[in-house]
Amino acid sequence: MVAIVLFTDFGAQDLYVGQVKAVLAARAPRARVIDALHEAPAFDIEAAAHLLAALAPRYSRGSVFVGVVDPGVGGARDAIVLRVDGRTFVGPDNGLFSVLWARGRRRSARRILWRPSGLSASFHGRDLFAPVAAALAAGRLPRGWTVQARGPRVLFGPDDRAAIIYIDHYGNAMTGLRADRRSLTARLRVARRRLGFARVFEAAPRGAAFWTVNSLGMVEIAANRASAAKRLRLRVGACVAWAV
Amino acid sequence: MVAIVLFTDFGAQDLYVGQVKAVLAARAPRARVIDALHEAPAFDIEAAAHLLAALAPRYSRGSVFVGVVDPGVGGARDAIVLRVDGRTFVGPDNGLFSVLWARGRRRSARRILWRPSGLSASFHGRDLFAPVAAALAAGRLPRGWTVQARGPRVLFGPDDRAAIIYIDHYGNAMTGLRADRRSLTARLRVARRRLGFARVFEAAPRGAAFWTVNSLGMVEIAANRASAAKRLRLRVGACVAWAV
Amino acid sequence: MVAIVLFTDFGAQDLYVGQVKAVLAARAPRARVIDALHEAPAFDIEAAAHLLAALAPRYSRGSVFVGVVDPGVGGARDAIVLRVDGRTFVGPDNGLFSVLWARGRRRSARRILWRPSGLSASFHGRDLFAPVAAALAAGRLPRGWTVQARGPRVLFGPDDRAAIIYIDHYGNAMTGLRADRRSLTARLRVARRRLGFARVFEAAPRGAAFWTVNSLGMVEIAANRASAAKRLRLRVGACVAWAV
Repeated sequence: MVAIVLFTDFGAQDLYVGQVKAVLAARAPRARVIDALHEAPAFDIEAAAHLLAALAPRYSRGSVFVGVVDPGVGGARDAIVLRVDGRTFVGPDNGLFSVLWARGRRRSARRILWRPSGLSASFHGRDLFAPVAAALAAGRLPRGWTVQARGPRVLFGPDDRAAIIYIDHYGNAMTGLRADRRSLTARLRVARRRLGFARVFEAAPRGAAFWTVNSLGMVEIAANRASAAKRLRLRVGACVAWAV
Repeated sequence: MVAIVLFTDFGAQDLYVGQVKAVLAARAPRARVIDALHEAPAFDIEAAAHLLAALAPRYSRGSVFVGVVDPGVGGARDAIVLRVDGRTFVGPDNGLFSVLWARGRRRSARRILWRPSGLSASFHGRDLFAPVAAALAAGRLPRGWTVQARGPRVLFGPDDRAAIIYIDHYGNAMTGLRADRRSLTARLRVARRRLGFARVFEAAPRGAAFWTVNSLGMVEIAANRASAAKRLRLRVGACVAWAV
Repeated sequence: MVAIVLFTDFGAQDLYVGQVKAVLAARAPRARVIDALHEAPAFDIEAAAHLLAALAPRYSRGSVFVGVVDPGVGGARDAIVLRVDGRTFVGPDNGLFSVLWARGRRRSARRILWRPSGLSASFHGRDLFAPVAAALAAGRLPRGWTVQARGPRVLFGPDDRAAIIYIDHYGNAMTGLRADRRSLTARLRVARRRLGFARVFEAAPRGAAFWTVNSLGMVEIAANRASAAKRLRLRVGACVAWAV
């Protein structure tokens, strides 16, 4: 059974996700639908692109992602289908998939030509991307719906992003820095502070801020039993740097 | 496979929806359950009635809706099952379904006589409506659980509602005005402002408020990359009008 | 079909629940997954333990619960599987399951020995508890993953908790007091007030605070068409008492 994975800024509490799921249920009734995130940073596509690149490997190969962070919906951007290392991504060609594309090995791209009758100006997630994802999940993409392409047009590149890309409800702030090459003695500069490393929350004094390697392998700013984001006044997009 | 669609004010983050789903899973294990909305306006049934009328057509014919916005739970209102244009609605007879009923063509109504042992005073969604919806979805409604009725007792009527009926997490404010008959040169009065029309967000200056036709075909107040609700201090129930 | 029930503090809006569901979908593709709550009190395990004890009976016997409220993740606590009165609970041995264990009749306990390669320091819900729950739901727990135990090590005991254990989005405040033995003429002391009983919201004057028996059979503080939590400034952990 194929999984369709949703990564959007539609809001988990709002009335948009259900409408997408109604389309998926009608067109791919046997697919399982999993909500990866509906609170992706709405107006910072580059942050969302790094977040999706970090998150996607946690979902099975074969999964079909509907990825929508699309402030330019109804404007001139294209619609694309990318295959990267065994996973498929459907959504706007606005850079959202470009980090994982740039880091991918086996990859191919198609542009979506099909447009449904009654396409709304503001909800391509429901009207355009969900039907394409459902067709892909059901293994029945009609001929002519897509055409081969070289890759996404908008590209951010494969490098890490030295900025905060996501803040969770605990107040932990994920950066776009992958942790695997970094010495654990390094200090991280953020908001005029220099933070040391701690492996687990309990290893830091209560309330103290530190950096750690989160469960996606990314550098994250946290505080023991407190909100690092509130304590340091962090926002998505705020820059970080390794202290020399 | 029948879909059971949930439209409530139970809160997407709260512990109520899961209890409803436990009942549905036990009694209609093959039905798919879709969360349409759990943040329906809690104390404005008329707004919720217009919102549900706008939203319901996005779900497949054959769907069984559990609709619960029910500040009078435990009081004297009845429980009903309505069939309107191929969809079924289960919930309180407090007006919630009356807009879509008044606009419907093929329609029938039944009153729910059955009461479970152990009916709670405050959670008829779990104890009463979910078992009835599950029985309907499974095609096994026991004889005697319902009796034919003329229609809902509480009625708001089919006309549009010139007020805000929902505010989403972006800060867009949906009105109860259907957009299909309105000239796109009209101006909309709200909060002592007159707003012009824009087809897509990108067509308005950044931060500027405008009205548009949303993806449900309703008149909506929005702002380009900003929260119209915050900017104009809008609330559910606030009146709007076409400027003459 | 077995249900896997999730009870966590991961946040309904956040990116953690989806990762747990990806593991469950891959390892127990036929199980139904139900979100009971993802906003359990994060730093008050005792409140969460009483809440879970109240909530669990609403889910079918045979259900497998993944219960994670785990501020000490990555520290020294054990991982356990408990069977209590036909339901199974997987999670940390930090007291979260100890109230329902202490109140249970037929019960057995096992300690989890298995550790996955690549166990993260902060997300045992995804890496450790989800695979074990999936194996249990699929009826294929490998030999050697668990070993028999006497019971959980951390124990709070079976008694009621005279404090607020949960506040819902309406502002209703649930206590850890079970309502079944209490005279309905008693007054409840909280926040320097003495509250009388009302059976349903409509029975109280608009805006007035009262106590009631909620749909889980617990004593709850509420206000008619208003937020009792805001009005009385209530928080999880605040003490309550019966007035003599």
